[in-house]
Amino acid sequence: MITPRVLRGMRDFLPAQMIVRQQVIATIRAVFERHGFEPIETPVLEYFETLTGSIDDEKLIYHFEDHGGRDIGLRFDLTVPLARFVAQHQNELTFPFKRYHIAPVWRADRPQRGRFREFWQCDADIVGSSSMLADADVVSVMIESLEALDINEFTVRINHRKLLEAVGRYAGVDEERAGSVYRAVDKLDKIGPAGVEAELVEHGVTPESATRIVELVRASGSADEQFARASAALDGIAGAEEALGELSQLFDALAASNVPSNRYRFDLSLARGMGYYTGPVYEASDEEFNMGSLAGAGRYDGLVGRFSRQELPATGISLGIERIFEIIQERQGGSGAASVSQLLVTVFNDEQSADSLRLAAEMRDAGVRAETYLEPRRGLGRQFAYAEARGIPYAAVLGPDEVERGVVGLKDIRTQEQVELARGELPAEVQRLTSNG
Amino acid sequence: MITPRVLRGMRDFLPAQMIVRQQVIATIRAVFERHGFEPIETPVLEYFETLTGSIDDEKLIYHFEDHGGRDIGLRFDLTVPLARFVAQHQNELTFPFKRYHIAPVWRADRPQRGRFREFWQCDADIVGSSSMLADADVVSVMIESLEALDINEFTVRINHRKLLEAVGRYAGVDEERAGSVYRAVDKLDKIGPAGVEAELVEHGVTPESATRIVELVRASGSADEQFARASAALDGIAGAEEALGELSQLFDALAASNVPSNRYRFDLSLARGMGYYTGPVYEASDEEFNMGSLAGAGRYDGLVGRFSRQELPATGISLGIERIFEIIQERQGGSGAASVSQLLVTVFNDEQSADSLRLAAEMRDAGVRAETYLEPRRGLGRQFAYAEARGIPYAAVLGPDEVERGVVGLKDIRTQEQVELARGELPAEVQRLTSNG
Repeated sequence: MITPRVLRGMRDFLPAQMIVRQQVIATIRAVFERHGFEPIETPVLEYFETLTGSIDDEKLIYHFEDHGGRDIGLRFDLTVPLARFVAQHQNELTFPFKRYHIAPVWRADRPQRGRFREFWQCDADIVGSSSMLADADVVSVMIESLEALDINEFTVRINHRKLLEAVGRYAGVDEERAGSVYRAVDKLDKIGPAGVEAELVEHGVTPESATRIVELVRASGSADEQFARASAALDGIAGAEEALGELSQLFDALAASNVPSNRYRFDLSLARGMGYYTGPVYEASDEEFNMGSLAGAGRYDGLVGRFSRQELPATGISLGIERIFEIIQERQGGSGAASVSQLLVTVFNDEQSADSLRLAAEMRDAGVRAETYLEPRRGLGRQFAYAEARGIPYAAVLGPDEVERGVVGLKDIRTQEQVELARGELPAEVQRLTSNG
Repeated sequence: MITPRVLRGMRDFLPAQMIVRQQVIATIRAVFERHGFEPIETPVLEYFETLTGSIDDEKLIYHFEDHGGRDIGLRFDLTVPLARFVAQHQNELTFPFKRYHIAPVWRADRPQRGRFREFWQCDADIVGSSSMLADADVVSVMIESLEALDINEFTVRINHRKLLEAVGRYAGVDEERAGSVYRAVDKLDKIGPAGVEAELVEHGVTPESATRIVELVRASGSADEQFARASAALDGIAGAEEALGELSQLFDALAASNVPSNRYRFDLSLARGMGYYTGPVYEASDEEFNMGSLAGAGRYDGLVGRFSRQELPATGISLGIERIFEIIQERQGGSGAASVSQLLVTVFNDEQSADSLRLAAEMRDAGVRAETYLEPRRGLGRQFAYAEARGIPYAAVLGPDEVERGVVGLKDIRTQEQVELARGELPAEVQRLTSNG
């Protein structure tokens, strides 16, 4: 006998979990499609060379030699495959190209609470537009998706990569240390202002510069005040004007798109780790469940150019769908087993099973999700217990007498109450009882 | 620059293809759920030992050593992971357990027309019932799924593994050659009766036995006549009575479930290759597009026992979803690009882009899938061409004059005709124009 087990960091999903996951994905897909994003799919396996160069740590990639001696790997995100896809199908696509992709990815990371080796990503990106209208589109999709999922306590922080570069210049940090500025500032929430200063100094930034940087990025006041202060402080610094101009356009476009203004704000301390961002960056944090980042991303104008002679600007978002699943599941915590079935048609005995099959078929024809109990030799009590364990809310009961009289017993599994109905009334009654509210 | 390419036998799916694939999957899911099948998901990667032992050729499995030195592989079907899943979660599941799983699998096979190294499977199985009601359930799901997809010319052939064993006994073939009987009989359609006889003889069956086998399995006449003839011929042969009894129950249950009788028939020559079947086997063949098997499967009572001390009977079907995608796409051939968007809101110029964003947001709030053109510096002609290339059927046109008058121009991209509407009427009109029929 082989011991049944899954690999560490990977998961089976049982029906109750899958039903929630499918509902979440359906909700998000509806928002994506309402904005005109279209689905694509790419292979799970890619040439290893396609996958390298964009991940901080290549050791995280599952890779191996296939039967033909090719070096191949499992995708670790959906952005690199998108860049490869767009370069490869350039002549078949219409730009700006708006696509979504909801699928699993793999990382050979150390598993820990909330971090898995196989997990799903949920991305919406626009390739081929450098307009801030594109950034506003993905940010509104991010906000609408979270709202559609009834995640109420969240804010999207928005910054611009070129503004952070300008902060470095403003503080007198030389260009080659610019990267350490992002990484240190990114940790402001975690390690505090003193921690950021210490880390900057550790990376060769002078103490004076470190102080100036931290003072600027942690500025208090409203987002508008912060934006005004950053504009004043960075006046005349190379790159700052362009970045501030783009952010203004982005904020204007969000306002015009009726995105509630309490859902997003400027935050000069937002850096985001990934090396490939080139413009605005966004991150949604949940403030209710304190589960950290719910969604994020930004503009990455250089990525498609890795696979194509033609550079194509791109921007997009990635919803932290595994965290979202956790939040929704936590919220539904007490609500018991979910089931897709609305009705279990019980079987009186072996001889009468045809009657039950007929009734179940009738119910399905009328649009009810109905199944027949499949072990006709078991008693009714056992069949009701089955419905209860599965979370099926109602059971139909019929013996020879009911069949002859054209009626059916309808049992509420939770209350144990049973009523008798004319057979023709059953579908509408089950629909009524199992519809929400 | 890295050349953008996919691995041989693997595929990208562009939006037009993905939209069809998603529609097909949604249709099938609705049928599965109407019968009470519930979704599960298992990891793509499994321990290699989990995957071995059930596939005819283990070389087809993509496998490798992971970072922790574990021998792991990509699943090659969804049935073996189901057996592992059921054994592992036995105490969390309610039996009979009805699950569906729609997901990709991998086989390092020689790619050829219609055969891929990454492809999707679409399975519905019932574990924990040995009743023929379970087999009738999965066969009706198979038939209803194909009908729901408007695949009209198909028939499900049904046989029983133990009946084929009995045929071997009837012809005097010794037990150890029973396997070669299935495999040879399975090829009747391809190599004809003489071919089957030759192959049987090649595998050590006497010419007399080979002739008796072929005469019995290729019997002509209606399915009922064939069934009667098989019953008569195999009378008294060990195992035949049980198998014939089960098939009778299965046919009765299908009739009671209102499955049209022209959709299925007994066929003693149906064998199906996989070694693990133990009871009834089914196969749906398409007779319109001549694309071979559309769906198939059968009962496999021994598989869960590989992973558990407790044997659990199981039966199920697998829809040949890649072939179904091909059929649907072929059928839709001439109907042009599909799009999820119903409306492109054009942008008059850079300054007026806020007006367009506002209109698009209004439309989406009213339930229309609407997107704004994202490159505001391009002329209207270019924007209409974009809608046409994307397959977006309508475009909204608004400049400062329209905004002031509270109206919008609605352009039919196909006919190029444009009408003017009050702004408030736009959502309903777009919904009306883009609804089917």
